[in-house]
Order: sequence, then C-alpha cells, then structure tokens
Amino acid sequence: MSSFAFTVTHRDDGVNARRGVIRTRAGAIQTPVFMPVGTQATVKTLHPDEVEATGAQVILCNTYHLMLRPGEEVLMDAGGLHRFMGWHGPILTDSGGFQIFSLAQQAKVREEGVTFRSHIDGSAHTLTPESAVDLQARFGSEIMMPLDHLVGLPASKRTIEDATERTTRWLERSIVAHRDSDILTKGVLFGIAQGGMDRELRRRQSQFLAQCDVAGSAIGGLSVGEPKEVMASMLEEICPLLPADRPRYLMGVGSPEDLWDGVALGVDMFDCVLPTRLARTGSLFTLDGRVDILKARYRDVHEAVDADCDCATCARFTAAYLHHLFRSREVLGLRLATVHNLRFLARQMEFMRTSIEERSFEAAHRSFDERYRPVVRASSDPLPVA
Amino acid sequence: MSSFAFTVTHRDDGVNARRGVIRTRAGAIQTPVFMPVGTQATVKTLHPDEVEATGAQVILCNTYHLMLRPGEEVLMDAGGLHRFMGWHGPILTDSGGFQIFSLAQQAKVREEGVTFRSHIDGSAHTLTPESAVDLQARFGSEIMMPLDHLVGLPASKRTIEDATERTTRWLERSIVAHRDSDILTKGVLFGIAQGGMDRELRRRQSQFLAQCDVAGSAIGGLSVGEPKEVMASMLEEICPLLPADRPRYLMGVGSPEDLWDGVALGVDMFDCVLPTRLARTGSLFTLDGRVDILKARYRDVHEAVDADCDCATCARFTAAYLHHLFRSREVLGLRLATVHNLRFLARQMEFMRTSIEERSFEAAHRSFDERYRPVVRASSDPLPVA
Repeated sequence: MSSFAFTVTHRDDGVNARRGVIRTRAGAIQTPVFMPVGTQATVKTLHPDEVEATGAQVILCNTYHLMLRPGEEVLMDAGGLHRFMGWHGPILTDSGGFQIFSLAQQAKVREEGVTFRSHIDGSAHTLTPESAVDLQARFGSEIMMPLDHLVGLPASKRTIEDATERTTRWLERSIVAHRDSDILTKGVLFGIAQGGMDRELRRRQSQFLAQCDVAGSAIGGLSVGEPKEVMASMLEEICPLLPADRPRYLMGVGSPEDLWDGVALGVDMFDCVLPTRLARTGSLFTLDGRVDILKARYRDVHEAVDADCDCATCARFTAAYLHHLFRSREVLGLRLATVHNLRFLARQMEFMRTSIEERSFEAAHRSFDERYRPVVRASSDPLPVA
Repeated sequence: MSSFAFTVTHRDDGVNARRGVIRTRAGAIQTPVFMPVGTQATVKTLHPDEVEATGAQVILCNTYHLMLRPGEEVLMDAGGLHRFMGWHGPILTDSGGFQIFSLAQQAKVREEGVTFRSHIDGSAHTLTPESAVDLQARFGSEIMMPLDHLVGLPASKRTIEDATERTTRWLERSIVAHRDSDILTKGVLFGIAQGGMDRELRRRQSQFLAQCDVAGSAIGGLSVGEPKEVMASMLEEICPLLPADRPRYLMGVGSPEDLWDGVALGVDMFDCVLPTRLARTGSLFTLDGRVDILKARYRDVHEAVDADCDCATCARFTAAYLHHLFRSREVLGLRLATVHNLRFLARQMEFMRTSIEERSFEAAHRSFDERYRPVVRASSDPLPVA
C-alpha cells in the first residue's frame, strides 16, 4: 500500500468535518471530495478533459458494466482502464455487487460468490470476492471495493443479518485475495460497512470494519430513500467508530445538501450518478436549489443559468440557449448541463475544504442551508442506481 | 456589400480548381471550403470550440428550424444567432425553402410565398422571398440565401419549369428586398441556380444568375441521387457560366470524393449533413473509405481509427474505445466520431488548397481517387436532408 496515503491536514473545532489529502500513484485527491461516476468507462456525455476541468479529482467506474463490456481482455490489451478511456487521474472501481443486485438478471448468492446473467445479452457470469478483487486489480484502479451481499428493502431481520454476515466473511476473503494478489500494480482495497437502518447492526459492522486491514472505510446502504434525519443519525453513530486515519467514503450520495451534511459528520469521499443524471433531464443545481431548464420561463433568459457559477457552461452560454438545446433535444444541451452540475458539486467541495481550513465550516454550512431549497425526496422515489 | 469580398488567389493550370479567400465581417474563409451544418443553432453533438478546432471556418444554419425554434424574437433578444450559439465565425443561413418542402407539413406555394405548418407543433407559418431575407438579416448571418421553389422528383417538365420560373421571380424580389432592407448589419445575398437534370434549363438558370446583383452563385438540386457522372457533367456545364469573380457554392454536397470532383470543376464552397450524420451512425471517413466502427473487428484495435488523421479524436482515443462507446450507446462516441469526420473533410479541403497553390491539384486528386473507395449510392437512397 505504499502508493496510497491519507493525511488529515485540518480539523475544524466543534464539528467533525476534516480536510485531508489522499495520495495515489495517479495523483493526489484533496478531501472532502465528490467523485463523478463514469459507469461504462465514460462520465456520460463528457470528454475526460471536460471532467477534469470541472475540478473532478477522481472518478468512479463500475466493475459490473466493464466486465461485461468491453470485458477484461479488451481492457488488458488496452493497457488498463485509464489508457482505454483517456482519464489519467485516480479511479475508484466498485465491486460490481450493487449492479448485480439491481441490474443483472437471476442474481443468485452462494457462499462462494454470486452468479448472474448479463442485462445486455443474458450471458452467465460469476463473481466471487476473489475474482472481484482480481478484476479491479487488472483494470488498474487506484481504489478497489470488496464484493458485498446486498438485499432489497424491506427485508426480514434474518435476511438482513444473513447478508450482513456473508458480507463480513466476503470482506475477509477480499482482504486475503488482495494481500496475496501477485498483480504488482494493484490499487488499495477499502472495506464496506452495511447494516441498513439497524443502529446496532451498523455499530457492529463499523467496529468490525475498523479492525480490518483496509485502506479506507466505505458506508453503504444509506441515502436509499430514508428521511435525511435518519441518514444523519446513522452517520453520527457510525463515523466515530471508523478509524480517523482512514478516509471515510459515503457511497451513492450526491445531493448538495447531503454532501454538506456528510462532511459535517466526518465523511471524506462521496460518489453518485445524481449530478450527471439530473443534468441529462435538464435539472441544474444552483445555490438556491435545482432549476428545470425546460421550463418556459427560461426561453428568454439571456444570462447564465447560475450567476454565481464559474463553470465552462455558465461562462459561455445563456439559460435561453440551454433551454433551446433541451427543447430541441440536442446533445450539446446534455453536455453543457453535465459540466455545470459537476462543477457545482466540485465547487461546493472546494468551499467546504476552504472553510475547514479557515475553521468556518459551521457558518458556511449554515449559510448554504439557509439559501438552498432541497428537493424533498419521497420515500417511494426510485433508488438511484449507477 | 463592403463587408464581403471574394478574391481568387491561385489557379492551377489545366484544371478549373481555384484557391481564394472570402472576407466577411466575422472573419476570412479560405476557399475551397466545406461548411459543417448547425441545423438548430448547434453543430450536432459539438461545442463551438470543437467545431473550430476541426478547422471549420464557416457553418451553415437552417432558417426553417430557427424561425420555429427558438424563433426570431429569442434570437433578437439574444443579440443574434452568433451570440446565442457561441459561434463567432461566419455563418451562412439557408432560406428555409429546402426544409419547408422536405420537412414541414402542408407546404402550399402561391406567387406571394409559401405557407406551411411546423413539423414541431403544427403551427401555421408563411415565408416569402422578402421575409426570408428579413429573417436571415435579423439572425445576423454573413451569407444569406434566397427562397426558392423546390419540387420533388420525378416531376413533369411543366412542373419543373413552373417552379424554376417562380424561383427566378422570387430571386429578383429577394435582391430588391435585400437592397432595400434597412438592417444595417445585414449580410450578403447569394443567388441559387436550380434546374434539375435538364441541361438546357441549367444553362438558362446559370446565365440568368450570372446577371443578377448577388455576392455568390449557389448550385442547388444536385447530389440528390443521380449518378456521379451526371453531377459532374452538370457542373462542367454550369461552372463556366457562373461569374469567376464570385464564389460558387454547391449545396448539399459533402462526400469526400464529391468535394474533390466539385473543386476540380471550379466549386469554392460546399455544405452537407453527411459527415456529422454518418458520424452519429458510427461511420467514419478514412483515406481508404468509410469504416463502420460498430463492426466486431474494431473491438480489439488499440490504435487510432485512422493512422493518417490529426484530429483530436485520433490523437487521444483508440478504435477499440470508440467501438465500446458506440456499442454502449454513449454520447461521447457520437462526439468523437463527429470531430473525426469534420476534421477529415476540413483536412481534405486543406490538401486541395495547398495542391492548388502548388499547382499539383490534378495529381493530388488522382492520388485521392486511387486510394479512396467511395460508397456507391443507389439512386433509391433517401435524400439527405438537413
């Protein structure tokens, strides 16, 4: 793990927010950080240079998608995922588990691993904790995630406990597989603590994870439709149990208000498809909340969507032009909105980092919350999947 | 017309190919030139900076599309088409005629003009020679086209002659409207000579156009499915009749072999949706002919699609990555292919310009033809419309 190091550089009194740096062989990551998602070896609609220009420091790619298409062999022949997709910064790969349980067909869990059929062509595949580590090591990602067993909610306590315990055993196997792997260029392995909304289970899982020999601690299974207060109270419970000298990564969280709340409670890393997916529907972040660029009121707004924004879109194009592009279903609209939303989140993270350095995080957080009107998520909203 | 000038700077002995410069208030255009099409105020999938980086010097926008959406008022409030879409180079606008006759509903021609219904929302509109000039002047394009009456082929000689004569009368009205327009920033007006495949009609139309007070001569109604030899023989007939001191513009032509043939016969300007539309189907130009990037053989080709190409796509990404993006239906694939095809055509034009300067056009043309395997167009192929 010599090519990976996490250092906390600043703390702010009275809050758990912290400012740090993760060093990887593909470059440094200033934390707290939001990671855009590049599911199929591309952050949807964007060129890697545009992703970088938004201030993105690290992206997430999906092992499930990549193992099916283009497949391990093509990625190996290409010289790894970075060269294949032209992104030379750090990459975090997930284990494939989330998509197997949400997107693949006929997912079947055995102790050995999980079998499933591709959503693309129905072909049969198997992923084990060992093969998930091996695949990610071959892809060449800097940060790898262990395979975990997810269950759809609601589920019985027994089902949840069974999956949780299997995830624990799989994590132990992942750590061994990672340690014993002879791929010299392998990245580091994080661990994941699940536990649904069961406070006691969450505690146990987090305490277990804290003992494991992994480079970072991921928190899974939150922001899946529960009220924001529930997520906050879970994080309050979990974060102190996770080692302070490892980055804490809250998986699948990406709304601006959740990023602020997560950082306040001690989270260092986030990823989510939300900013890119919302962008493609014409929903753009501003400091006042989301705006829907398709609304007729933007037809004649000949100024930037967000006067406070320094992104390449707002610097050059008007709300009226974006409105026109979305109404006309032009691809450039998807691109410009994606650039804006990614820059918005990257900039929020910059504000957070600066305010932690200046010990003014709490005031900055309050000031964000006072202005930003979040979209209230109904618990029946579909689960955002990558 | 002080903001527009055309100068022929080089001729090559023995061929009609010529090298020149069109000066407009939005910049100079080195000729011969290919103009990418930006139908709805965007060259599909690309940012204006990317269009420029392909070597594009001037783009074409469609009056029909723009008058319906975003509409004249929005474009006026935006400060004109250039500012609206962020393209600061020269723009040529068509008159709207072609789309009215190919895309709109219930097009009805009267001597006054043409009435039609929008293909978007069925709303009723009228375009006259005068209003077409006025609209384009308000959009702020550098080069405007007069409304013409097009008829679907096959058609009776009577129908064709009737439409041709109306086009002549409409051109005269367009010239008056342009001369009398009080829009100080108006661009120049070109004339269009139609005439189908009727050699005698083509001659008459071209001779008439030569007498008109317009800044350039457009040739319409070719490359609509006729064999390439027929188009060549028409151009051989027409070009010498069109004034040598005005640019000759062959409308709707954009296959690499047609560009070489057109320039050889004295054409200075071309436009077509072909390179951008083909790109979005995964069809990419190379010096050997088009390739279909979706073919399985590109799955493992870890080098540029076209080793001879200097475009931003070939410099950075492999055929295998493009193949993956197209198979995965990722937007970035459309973009990268579009950049490649536009750069390919821009570079062919550069080769033509250099070879004319060096008086080696004929040899360069032969060398292109010997290598390039064109796609033979069946006469039943659908008409490419913008």
